[in-house]
Amino acid sequence: MTLTGHHFIAGREAAPHGHLFHAFNPTTSAQLEPAYGDATHAEADEAMQAADAAFDALRLATPETRATLLDTIAEEITALGDALLERAHAECALPMARLTGERGRAIGQLKLFAALIREGSWANACVDHAIPDRQPLPKPDVRRVMLPIGPVVVFGASNFPFAIGVIGTDTVCALAAGCPVVVKGHPAHPGTCEMLARAVLNALHKVGLPAGCFSLLHGKGNDIGTTLTKHPLTQAVAFTGSLRGGRALMDVAAARAHPIPVYAEMGSVNPVFVLPGALKERASKIAEAYVGSVTMGVGQFCTNPAVVLGLKSEELNQFISNAAALAGKVAPQTMLHRGICEAYDAGTAVWQTVKGLQLVGESETPSSETASQAACRIFTTTIDVLESNAELRREVFGPCSIITQCATLEDLLRYANSLEGQLTATIQGTEQDLRDFAPLIRVLERKVGRIIFNGFPTGIEVCPSMHHGGPYPAASHSFFTSIGTGSIYRFVRPVCYQGFPEEALPELLKDANPRGAMRIVDGVMAR
Amino acid sequence: MTLTGHHFIAGREAAPHGHLFHAFNPTTSAQLEPAYGDATHAEADEAMQAADAAFDALRLATPETRATLLDTIAEEITALGDALLERAHAECALPMARLTGERGRAIGQLKLFAALIREGSWANACVDHAIPDRQPLPKPDVRRVMLPIGPVVVFGASNFPFAIGVIGTDTVCALAAGCPVVVKGHPAHPGTCEMLARAVLNALHKVGLPAGCFSLLHGKGNDIGTTLTKHPLTQAVAFTGSLRGGRALMDVAAARAHPIPVYAEMGSVNPVFVLPGALKERASKIAEAYVGSVTMGVGQFCTNPAVVLGLKSEELNQFISNAAALAGKVAPQTMLHRGICEAYDAGTAVWQTVKGLQLVGESETPSSETASQAACRIFTTTIDVLESNAELRREVFGPCSIITQCATLEDLLRYANSLEGQLTATIQGTEQDLRDFAPLIRVLERKVGRIIFNGFPTGIEVCPSMHHGGPYPAASHSFFTSIGTGSIYRFVRPVCYQGFPEEALPELLKDANPRGAMRIVDGVMAR
Repeated sequence: MTLTGHHFIAGREAAPHGHLFHAFNPTTSAQLEPAYGDATHAEADEAMQAADAAFDALRLATPETRATLLDTIAEEITALGDALLERAHAECALPMARLTGERGRAIGQLKLFAALIREGSWANACVDHAIPDRQPLPKPDVRRVMLPIGPVVVFGASNFPFAIGVIGTDTVCALAAGCPVVVKGHPAHPGTCEMLARAVLNALHKVGLPAGCFSLLHGKGNDIGTTLTKHPLTQAVAFTGSLRGGRALMDVAAARAHPIPVYAEMGSVNPVFVLPGALKERASKIAEAYVGSVTMGVGQFCTNPAVVLGLKSEELNQFISNAAALAGKVAPQTMLHRGICEAYDAGTAVWQTVKGLQLVGESETPSSETASQAACRIFTTTIDVLESNAELRREVFGPCSIITQCATLEDLLRYANSLEGQLTATIQGTEQDLRDFAPLIRVLERKVGRIIFNGFPTGIEVCPSMHHGGPYPAASHSFFTSIGTGSIYRFVRPVCYQGFPEEALPELLKDANPRGAMRIVDGVMAR
Repeated sequence: MTLTGHHFIAGREAAPHGHLFHAFNPTTSAQLEPAYGDATHAEADEAMQAADAAFDALRLATPETRATLLDTIAEEITALGDALLERAHAECALPMARLTGERGRAIGQLKLFAALIREGSWANACVDHAIPDRQPLPKPDVRRVMLPIGPVVVFGASNFPFAIGVIGTDTVCALAAGCPVVVKGHPAHPGTCEMLARAVLNALHKVGLPAGCFSLLHGKGNDIGTTLTKHPLTQAVAFTGSLRGGRALMDVAAARAHPIPVYAEMGSVNPVFVLPGALKERASKIAEAYVGSVTMGVGQFCTNPAVVLGLKSEELNQFISNAAALAGKVAPQTMLHRGICEAYDAGTAVWQTVKGLQLVGESETPSSETASQAACRIFTTTIDVLESNAELRREVFGPCSIITQCATLEDLLRYANSLEGQLTATIQGTEQDLRDFAPLIRVLERKVGRIIFNGFPTGIEVCPSMHHGGPYPAASHSFFTSIGTGSIYRFVRPVCYQGFPEEALPELLKDANPRGAMRIVDGVMAR
């Protein structure tokens, strides 16, 4: 596939004009062709108008048609073959093995949501039959099902070009629900975005759905994203990225004449509590898994464990030594783009000016002169230093982490109580530790979206029970998840039909229940 | 019970000081004793601190304890006897029969949520067991359940002193979920609020839960509400009232350092489409039901049908004449308070200045000199007048409605497409009408929370399938309902437990499932 640099506006290709930008290969610092451009306000409006015009066709299509669309997108992505992986590797510097795995996850998501909507139970259909002779008033026939909300704007993440990108979880669950999607492409991997957009448009064409169901607009600055978020036809925004970026979109959306939800997943520091029993049993094993988690994907995961807390002890010292030694042996790795790498170096440089914080382990191999490489950096400090320096409590995106020495359970509790919302918290402990430190779990239940026992937070299982979100600032709204089948609920809303004849009801609400979906009928769950 | 004018701050009674206010009897215009006062910032802070301190006790109590709390509140309210009804009647002018019925609904809500949490399926528990030997990576054990979010601030509605008041649906589902509640009392019925607050505090005491689970603060202006919404410990706000009031709270909440959701239900114009087949069959019956719906509760329902649309015809003319005649026979009724009555008269007076709008029916009996009485007022106009006058498209709260004459289906579709979000829309039609006007239903599905066929929107059935909400500005977030069992989801969020031993899991996530709740286990719905 020859890349063009075009925007895709409801199937119309629009050459870039005005301000142009390029992707760069973070490994070689070479500029990658072609040039992309910032979409204009008129192009944003055209995309949103087309999305709105396509909404009825998409939402009123049968679930089978929408499921086939998702399956066909999966086929089209597979058909892109190695060319897709190679372009993503050139733009993001992620290893080919990781990209192959991530493509598999993206395809898996497409198939997961295809199966979900074919089956139908996700829509929480609920039927309450009429009781015409109820006293003192007749009970009307009331039925409720989830309907899609309308055009959705998706901002893909830099760190998952496939799984949280143009055809990532946000796009997939929006299309599954019946919502047209306008993607703001990530400027660090516009070529990857272009290839994926062609796959979606090919699939729409094959399935016979309007091209307006999907648009891709490029842009390097904030302008086009702000314009899309302000557009009156936009019904929701999905965003994965920094707190600054997500909050800016939240503020724009809240100030609209007609406010809309921004579902922003904005990362967190994902504290790990290493409890005494576990340290006694297996300090070196935990250190190994911890450094593996910190450096996985060059630390470029929103679930990266950026802070560890333990009680001062010989075993904790041993854990710190082990982790420091392991960090030294980790070779520097190329980050997603130069901007992220510079922010990482700047953020960890600020940390090194903090009195009472020590850099105890750092990749021994020097970083490349040309590539945007990050060294692993493990720090240690005490709880009072952590508590008195706000900059230590902000996420620095990359393979760094701070091991914090506490004196007592009260220190741990005070720290946990002071936490802002987190995607995850992790306990490394024995079952006895869990009992002894139960008050800590009670605090974490108020602060985080996922609590992990004897694992690490990186590597998210995509399954029905997964919740990837948490109280602000981990996410913009703690009820919703951005990963797993539950993520579809961001783009639907309940609608009631009262007194409707069978013939005029949506399929999932008909008495016959032809899809055999699980429903609540007169208070009883049944197929 | 002697009323004191006190605030109730976690069981501590605080006498009013500073700016004082009284309730007025809208029927007699007499001032009602005692005086109430605006709570101070320090009192708001004390209530929120106490709520936060009580949160763990409430959320970690067994569902049985919380259910008993709700049952006990119901008993305490019943024990207030006629004194409660009499005070509410004096403050709100609602007829005793209506208040008796509403008290029944409020008690029904308490029992409904008690049953809901005893049963447990509401929490959407989901269990995915580990697969340690899965290739290429082991599958971890992941389980998810809903946990309460923390202290909730509730603003009761003026029009439902029991069912959407101090012990209304917001308070009940927050307590059921495990969230402490701070109620900002409605200044039009502070005595009713005080009586209900004592009932809640008595119940907390009997059940042995901390008084901090519930506080009641009075206040006449916006200041105390803004303070509570800004308070860092507040995790969500529930509000029922005007668009102006709800939007103001939404803006305050969105501008916080840590934004929180405001679940505001802000009313709508609830269009009724009277289709030709129905008019041919039963114009006079529809007119009767329509005027009944417009004047029910003196038009003081957020689902009041404020606009009717039909196609110009002899039958529509007949419908208009019938409705006008029936309106003439409706006696003026006393509204909830003088402010609402003045706004109603002012709003309908503005309408009467609009060229092309005719007042065709008005209560023939003159309104009382002393009471705050509203006459029923039925207007008629044409679609072009409705479309070109923005003031006709805003809700005027009270027993008024505009019957709008359209020329074609296209007029109806254009109007429906231009609608802002609505709580409800209603179709009066035959089954053939439903087929002929199917495109209208397709538009309404994008605009409203509930579509009613051959009924009227007033009189909401409280059942599992009910959705009382809709796109903005009907409600602040279209996913959530403020009535029915689904309203509990406003005050909870999913939390995942990964890798936890059985013993340390919340009850609903244990393999044994001792409560027998419906759950999704390894993808299969089961008890």
